[in-house]
Amino acid sequence: MHQKLKAHIDKIAPLTDDEFAFVSKHFTAKSFRKHQFLVQKGEPVSYNYFLLSGLTKLVYTDDESRQHILAFAMEDWWDTDLQAYYTRTKATLSMECLEDTEVLCLSLDNYQALCAGLPKIEHFFLEKAIFGFLAAQRRILSLMTSSAEERYNQLVKQHPSLLQRVPKTHLAAFLGVSRETLSRLAV
Amino acid sequence: MHQKLKAHIDKIAPLTDDEFAFVSKHFTAKSFRKHQFLVQKGEPVSYNYFLLSGLTKLVYTDDESRQHILAFAMEDWWDTDLQAYYTRTKATLSMECLEDTEVLCLSLDNYQALCAGLPKIEHFFLEKAIFGFLAAQRRILSLMTSSAEERYNQLVKQHPSLLQRVPKTHLAAFLGVSRETLSRLAV
Repeated sequence: MHQKLKAHIDKIAPLTDDEFAFVSKHFTAKSFRKHQFLVQKGEPVSYNYFLLSGLTKLVYTDDESRQHILAFAMEDWWDTDLQAYYTRTKATLSMECLEDTEVLCLSLDNYQALCAGLPKIEHFFLEKAIFGFLAAQRRILSLMTSSAEERYNQLVKQHPSLLQRVPKTHLAAFLGVSRETLSRLAV
Repeated sequence: MHQKLKAHIDKIAPLTDDEFAFVSKHFTAKSFRKHQFLVQKGEPVSYNYFLLSGLTKLVYTDDESRQHILAFAMEDWWDTDLQAYYTRTKATLSMECLEDTEVLCLSLDNYQALCAGLPKIEHFFLEKAIFGFLAAQRRILSLMTSSAEERYNQLVKQHPSLLQRVPKTHLAAFLGVSRETLSRLAV
């Protein structure tokens, strides 16, 4: 199943079989059931996760116990509490499975060893980081300039499959609108 | 004045003098006066800019001609319409000087040549991209969860010098609040 990872990396940085063998041994496979946590608020963050299958949510819970969804992830996406992972601090976010989920786990030590050992992989992560930054910048602009209805329509257009798989309550917590507002939009 | 760039890169990826000589020749210096544009909406984006001095704003103008400020940049910061720069498309944002501004310009071809020629620089840009992504993620959370007052206080804490240098109208357009709301907060 590491072939999914190879196909994913090859889109940006094509690897020889030998190079991928080197990459592959830095990852470990894990399976999680629906409702299990990959990242728990207050705990260390051991891994960045590449999703082979399934669906997760990355959540910030505020002082009034309201959940705000920073990101969803599904097949071929990466996700973790990156701030905590990267700075080796404790998680301020949680990452929870909305479906049974299979992942490949990359520790920070292994990430650094990979980048040091294979410049192509550093290039791959640079491209991913820039894409992530650009997506985040678009989301900031969308939060600043778009109505709830416009944000919902953008989401439908960009990720139609999410709408089928994610409960409405979670979509509302991602869009930053109430469940009632979303129900008005999603008819 | 390229020494400011060397000191900036050295914080993440210390370079030998020979390595920095290689880096340095990929940049060109330019000066802009207050109110000049480094990036114009609708035009190609030739450069990513490293600011040696001065202050700029990165702006999205909506269909009703309202300005939304995505970012400020000052000494030691990078900025451009990164989406347009990176994908060689036309700018959807504008970048304008709020003070006389000196920059070092890096074209995309030179960026790619640098990364291909010196892995340390690819590592430097990867770290910067990750920091940028994390800052954008914090801003998304802040827009989703914080009041205008909390966002203003976060800005005061993180970038006190901005408050001295940026007109209130621009601070309001960055925080996503009205000029009147900001006046109530900034007393």
